[in-house]
Amino acid sequence: MSLLVLKFGGTSVADLDRIRNAARHVKREADAGHAVAVVVSAMAGATNQLVALVEEAWGYKAAKQNGGSELSAQYDCREYDAVVASGEQVTSGLLALVLQSMGVKARSWQGWQIPLHTDDAHRAARITGLAVDELKTRMLDGEVAVIAGFQGIAPGNRISTLGRGGSDTSAVALAAALSADRCDVYTDVDGVYTTDPRLVPKAHRLDRISYEEMLEMASQGAKVLQTRSVELAMQRSVRVLVRSSFDPPDLGGRTAEADGTGLGTLVCHEDEIVEQNVVSGIAYARDEAKVTLLKVADKPGVAAQVFGSLATANINVDMIVQNVSEAGYTDLTFTVQSADLDRALEVLRKAKDKIGYADLRGSTDIAKVSAIGVGMRSHAGVAAQMFSALAEKGINIEAISTSEIKISVLIDAAYAELAVRTLHSLFGLDSR
Amino acid sequence: MSLLVLKFGGTSVADLDRIRNAARHVKREADAGHAVAVVVSAMAGATNQLVALVEEAWGYKAAKQNGGSELSAQYDCREYDAVVASGEQVTSGLLALVLQSMGVKARSWQGWQIPLHTDDAHRAARITGLAVDELKTRMLDGEVAVIAGFQGIAPGNRISTLGRGGSDTSAVALAAALSADRCDVYTDVDGVYTTDPRLVPKAHRLDRISYEEMLEMASQGAKVLQTRSVELAMQRSVRVLVRSSFDPPDLGGRTAEADGTGLGTLVCHEDEIVEQNVVSGIAYARDEAKVTLLKVADKPGVAAQVFGSLATANINVDMIVQNVSEAGYTDLTFTVQSADLDRALEVLRKAKDKIGYADLRGSTDIAKVSAIGVGMRSHAGVAAQMFSALAEKGINIEAISTSEIKISVLIDAAYAELAVRTLHSLFGLDSR
Repeated sequence: MSLLVLKFGGTSVADLDRIRNAARHVKREADAGHAVAVVVSAMAGATNQLVALVEEAWGYKAAKQNGGSELSAQYDCREYDAVVASGEQVTSGLLALVLQSMGVKARSWQGWQIPLHTDDAHRAARITGLAVDELKTRMLDGEVAVIAGFQGIAPGNRISTLGRGGSDTSAVALAAALSADRCDVYTDVDGVYTTDPRLVPKAHRLDRISYEEMLEMASQGAKVLQTRSVELAMQRSVRVLVRSSFDPPDLGGRTAEADGTGLGTLVCHEDEIVEQNVVSGIAYARDEAKVTLLKVADKPGVAAQVFGSLATANINVDMIVQNVSEAGYTDLTFTVQSADLDRALEVLRKAKDKIGYADLRGSTDIAKVSAIGVGMRSHAGVAAQMFSALAEKGINIEAISTSEIKISVLIDAAYAELAVRTLHSLFGLDSR
Repeated sequence: MSLLVLKFGGTSVADLDRIRNAARHVKREADAGHAVAVVVSAMAGATNQLVALVEEAWGYKAAKQNGGSELSAQYDCREYDAVVASGEQVTSGLLALVLQSMGVKARSWQGWQIPLHTDDAHRAARITGLAVDELKTRMLDGEVAVIAGFQGIAPGNRISTLGRGGSDTSAVALAAALSADRCDVYTDVDGVYTTDPRLVPKAHRLDRISYEEMLEMASQGAKVLQTRSVELAMQRSVRVLVRSSFDPPDLGGRTAEADGTGLGTLVCHEDEIVEQNVVSGIAYARDEAKVTLLKVADKPGVAAQVFGSLATANINVDMIVQNVSEAGYTDLTFTVQSADLDRALEVLRKAKDKIGYADLRGSTDIAKVSAIGVGMRSHAGVAAQMFSALAEKGINIEAISTSEIKISVLIDAAYAELAVRTLHSLFGLDSR
């Protein structure tokens, strides 16, 4: 017998047919004698509807229609949480009922019932404590615990939510608190791929990936697991299996290894991965934009001025490149999220006198392509290999950033697909 | 300064425009310096949608489609409550946000946050306790308490609901616990009328009505307030003002008496009503059906056999008439809810051998018309007046039932309108 935490996201509980499908996966594990907790998201679309209601209640919609781009004040996030958390409440009750109708003992748990304590950073709360004694006793007694994900209880007895994708974090935190053998995240893909299979048909599913690689993959645009949940899993050594809720509940006769591999991708510690490639995956992102400041004074304090202004406006900067100085001046290039580009340009235009620059340019025609792999730590020359392969294809590199396990390059968006395919082949990831 | 509990039903918070309208009513009272609590229902339609989801989850829909009229077992009402209570949770958060956007201090309260304790009769729970200290302190400090109606917390820390119309009960219980000056129930009519104005254009709104009369009116088909809430109001001496949420929030320049009359109907103790008519209102109901058992043995135990069978099947019987015995046999006539007629006939058919009767007949072509008034207690001859007025119009009375303050007659449905108008005039209720 194992102790398992299963997690089903919004598309996996989108309607009652999907909820019934999820229930069959749960029943399979319960019937196998495992003690099971299930964490559920809101039915796909429900959260967006609730958020729209909140914004309309506060007057965002009216403000937007009147052409107001900025709003006088933020709404009360405690009320946002009270409204939005209702989505997971509904799913948890429904899944418990479906399980009962299939003869599986089950009950729903809201965040405040467990209780799953959080801080008071409403709308993006962090988990501060989790009491699982009663939960665990009942699970070991054969009752499936169906838990409303994404939500908790904040100081002052108010409902809190963990922010978008928070159900992943709920599931991992619960698995840690329960000392679960594994946390199975059922999603609409059957695992983590070497790269996006829509782009590269030869991409293949990884049996295992390390937490560090997964973090880089996620932040590079492979959005399978919420970043915070992977960090938490790494920190608390929770083995997470990414698998598909579209698999037939009887698994179509397939069998998995004891650790679940064969059915999905196991996210685990590096030392659990026996056969380690130098590069495990190629990620790409098209949602970044490039900003260039021309002829900036090459003196201390200028960069601080530029990035300080952006930070104040809550704009995250990713890659930064500064060219060689020429006669006391330099060009400064960096990337921001595409959605932030207009705001970034506005901030920089307003600060023109303080910063001092000749011209300001913004462009969204760029892509970021990254090679990721813990094997890089022990292999020299990966970057050189990568740059020359791209050069051979005539792809110009506009910026470079690296970490211990990742090399990212910024290129013209038109070459994104070619670059990804080139690197996928280069590092031996094409499926045989 | 007064302490007021305001209650808005489903149609009064049906969408954000209606919620904004409700908020303006709340703001008017808060601006006048009153300490205000607001109890809200789910947005109209939301509860039905949630109930449909529960039934589908449990498999009712599938069972119905397969022609199964009976289901093997009832679903887990604790899960029903968890799902359905989310409707009020959403409205409470939204109304708090709208109030805040209007500059009114407000916060939402779920049943478990107050807490409003109930017994464990999930889906139809009864309130067992209400802790209002923190709520009251905040209200007196100028914060509007926006309370999710219909819901509470049951033993075992589970969410419970009070049954359909339960928000009225929440509001009255809260008003009692807070020792509120008044409980204003905003609904889609502007008060209680002498009879249905759609039927009798001369019907007029009552300024005041006693709890007892209101109970009879409600159970006779004038569904303005939930019966349980009126009983509770009577028991705890809560003055309830039934008023319209469609009134302009500035009241269109109208002013009310100190007790709210002039804007709606005040439901209060009999001794607060100075000018008391003998009859206050004429109620009618078309949702009853008549069942007749012909040639039943006129001996002890037969009635018990008949009504025992029906009670076992959870079918409520209203009026009962037994004709004079003839040669040891009698005819037995009684009424049930129309919705229960088929089941009642089936139950009686199955029990034919045990009961013993010659024939069984059911009909829905009947109406029940009632004259209601606490003044009847001190006035003799009301029934005689009523029967002769109906006889003059050629209306045949099929059954009669009376209480201290009510006389009901069962008649052919075709005469319902004529009967109501005749009695409305007879007892001096036509507006002048």
